[in-house]
Amino acid sequence: MAADSTQFTLDESRIPSAWFNVVPSMPTPPSPPIHPGTREPIGPEMLAPLFPMALIGQEVATDEWIDIPGPVMDIYRMYRPAPLVRARRLEKLLGTPARIYYKYEGVSAAGSHKPNTAIAQAYYNKAEGVKRIATETGAGQWGSAMAMACSFFDLECQVYMVRASYNQKPGRRVMMQTWGARVIASPSEETDAGRSILADSPDSPGSLGIAISEAVEDAAKREDTKYCLGSVLNHVLLHQTVIGLEAKAQMEMAGDFPDIVIGAVGGGSNFAGLVFPFVPHKTKAGKDMRFIAVEPTACPTLTEGSFEYDFGDTAETTPLLEMYTLGHKFIPPAIHAGGLRYHGDAPLLCRLVKDEVIEAVAYPQTKVFETAIQFARSEGIIPAPESAHAIRAAVDEALACKETGDSKAILFGLSGHGLLDLGAYEAYLGGDLMDA
Amino acid sequence: MAADSTQFTLDESRIPSAWFNVVPSMPTPPSPPIHPGTREPIGPEMLAPLFPMALIGQEVATDEWIDIPGPVMDIYRMYRPAPLVRARRLEKLLGTPARIYYKYEGVSAAGSHKPNTAIAQAYYNKAEGVKRIATETGAGQWGSAMAMACSFFDLECQVYMVRASYNQKPGRRVMMQTWGARVIASPSEETDAGRSILADSPDSPGSLGIAISEAVEDAAKREDTKYCLGSVLNHVLLHQTVIGLEAKAQMEMAGDFPDIVIGAVGGGSNFAGLVFPFVPHKTKAGKDMRFIAVEPTACPTLTEGSFEYDFGDTAETTPLLEMYTLGHKFIPPAIHAGGLRYHGDAPLLCRLVKDEVIEAVAYPQTKVFETAIQFARSEGIIPAPESAHAIRAAVDEALACKETGDSKAILFGLSGHGLLDLGAYEAYLGGDLMDA
Repeated sequence: MAADSTQFTLDESRIPSAWFNVVPSMPTPPSPPIHPGTREPIGPEMLAPLFPMALIGQEVATDEWIDIPGPVMDIYRMYRPAPLVRARRLEKLLGTPARIYYKYEGVSAAGSHKPNTAIAQAYYNKAEGVKRIATETGAGQWGSAMAMACSFFDLECQVYMVRASYNQKPGRRVMMQTWGARVIASPSEETDAGRSILADSPDSPGSLGIAISEAVEDAAKREDTKYCLGSVLNHVLLHQTVIGLEAKAQMEMAGDFPDIVIGAVGGGSNFAGLVFPFVPHKTKAGKDMRFIAVEPTACPTLTEGSFEYDFGDTAETTPLLEMYTLGHKFIPPAIHAGGLRYHGDAPLLCRLVKDEVIEAVAYPQTKVFETAIQFARSEGIIPAPESAHAIRAAVDEALACKETGDSKAILFGLSGHGLLDLGAYEAYLGGDLMDA
Repeated sequence: MAADSTQFTLDESRIPSAWFNVVPSMPTPPSPPIHPGTREPIGPEMLAPLFPMALIGQEVATDEWIDIPGPVMDIYRMYRPAPLVRARRLEKLLGTPARIYYKYEGVSAAGSHKPNTAIAQAYYNKAEGVKRIATETGAGQWGSAMAMACSFFDLECQVYMVRASYNQKPGRRVMMQTWGARVIASPSEETDAGRSILADSPDSPGSLGIAISEAVEDAAKREDTKYCLGSVLNHVLLHQTVIGLEAKAQMEMAGDFPDIVIGAVGGGSNFAGLVFPFVPHKTKAGKDMRFIAVEPTACPTLTEGSFEYDFGDTAETTPLLEMYTLGHKFIPPAIHAGGLRYHGDAPLLCRLVKDEVIEAVAYPQTKVFETAIQFARSEGIIPAPESAHAIRAAVDEALACKETGDSKAILFGLSGHGLLDLGAYEAYLGGDLMDA
């Protein structure tokens, strides 16, 4: 493999065999989740109805490395290692002296990074005798990954899908059904939470907050069922670190090391997956490098939110988490990057922003789509609107290098393709896409 | 790389640097295309208005290897080598002693194998000073690959898209527009052929035959424009042989060699791309191996057609080609595998079927979708309906091994994913999909 290559392809034997836990590399340890009534840290027994013990253990783990179980590795081997690509055509188009690399997670069958944790979560649930998973999904990225993972481990899967998406965006619903999941439009008649909303508003379009309430209630009420979440929690971020661990090995193959690592942030799992394995290089080894979290201006959690304890959901059913938040009642405008519409962010990520290890920047969606088109026409891949936020920041950093003449190495996360988001591209190309 | 691996990952340096021409390995040389009036073989001068000289040269080439130009290699490096995966979970599900491998072309940004030739065709046109490409597309697989390739080489691209697909299947139309192509619903007001159809039938839904006529007329009339085709012709099949050449190297990494190689056939380019590099092992080295071409029973060209000279298009504008054909007026039912609805097949492939080097089998679409679901739930990837024909045949061969106890190596081509064909899955899962 020569340094002048375009793709840096790892052999299957180089898939990481352990996940990386960022906690030991943090300047300040993360604060625990607390009970909204007592304000006391919550213990494992409070989480046990919802999660298997192995995942609760990972939630509070302080070891730096956590072994990836064999059956999870067996499934990672079906689609990993994911490509690391040098964006040579984009560099040329921009006329930048920067070296731009992207780590592409769109090669998974679900088209995004989400299976990296869905597979692990399905495995641990199966291992502890769980028969059935309840989860929620907005536009369907998470639900489709979880549906696929459940099909691999022969688990029943019930997905509460926000009704507006269920009706208007059939693509990911059909994917979930193809993988065997039962998909229910939320609010539904299957839970108290759903029925109570429908009693007041029979035509409710639903929301992610309502869907979470339904999935949590479903799991809490049934012995055979547990709940799965696709971002925010420590164990979810942990599983995603295969992204950054592979990227580090691939950058080494390229004979390079990133000066800047960039990712889009919704709940934080994709960003953390790419960036966390690089954090000790900065916090422990003192390397001069930057980590940039990119969010939409329509939901500016890290750039404009307050750092405080808040609920993880709209309905106030979760423990309180210390994080940047726009307030749990904040409802972001309906931008096309549906995966970035969350009022808070992962506590581990927020703590690192608070401690200035990670910086944050926000972009309006028209600027993001402008760059998405530029990327598609130079590099081929039509990016997911979420991922395109990271591309925009990478392009701006590369253009800054052009100004200064610096030849920096920029690595960004391309978390998924946009082939199920073509309606957004149609709106942009037709001039119908506005900034919120 | 151990033989017990799941993925067999080639380093970028192992992308083939030459395409493989099957002609020297054929028991009978292919018959030339002939003029419908004179019945004489057509010469290069007749093709020159439509194709660049380099491609006309490849059409009649008899060399076994043809070098891949550097600028084409540079773009192949962005997404190749494509994965070869051992379908271990499918093997286990079937309980077969067979070893099943698939070569997956869905990792290209267009989601199928089509870019392998689109990129080469765009390059040769650009190199000969062409400014603009006219082509046609049915459901959009070919048009989207050509649109992307034109964006890479800074060529204008005009795609005549069958009007029924243009209106009902916006996904691939939006992809083409994202890559900068001008997409026109066919029949259109832009050509004599289109205007004459519209004069008779203002509401015509169009057909691939009409769209071909419009694209050919467009290219023939404009000095700056040439025409591109996505299958059937010798040079198209040639470019696709990167698939089989990589697969051979990957099977070697697996310490294995296929007893059976299987691909779906529409015009034949995906099948030929995978199978042709293996042909000399059978025709020259005398190895006992089988090649199986899989087609839909709704369009049974190889299994029920006659071997004779026929037009390549409905409108009788092309030279006559010697091939298996259902007659150029044959209109197949509207099955979901739109890419397999062609009345003829590539002459090189047909000659090898005639000479019993390749065998053919046909399946109804309900059986194909049954297997597609089984594949998605065991291996993850939701296959394109076209590609799922190959999976069905591979599964049947693996089940035959289970009967006999034979441990054969079966390699099939998974030419693309089905993420733009989810409407077909919805119809199947809802019980609304019938056999034609």
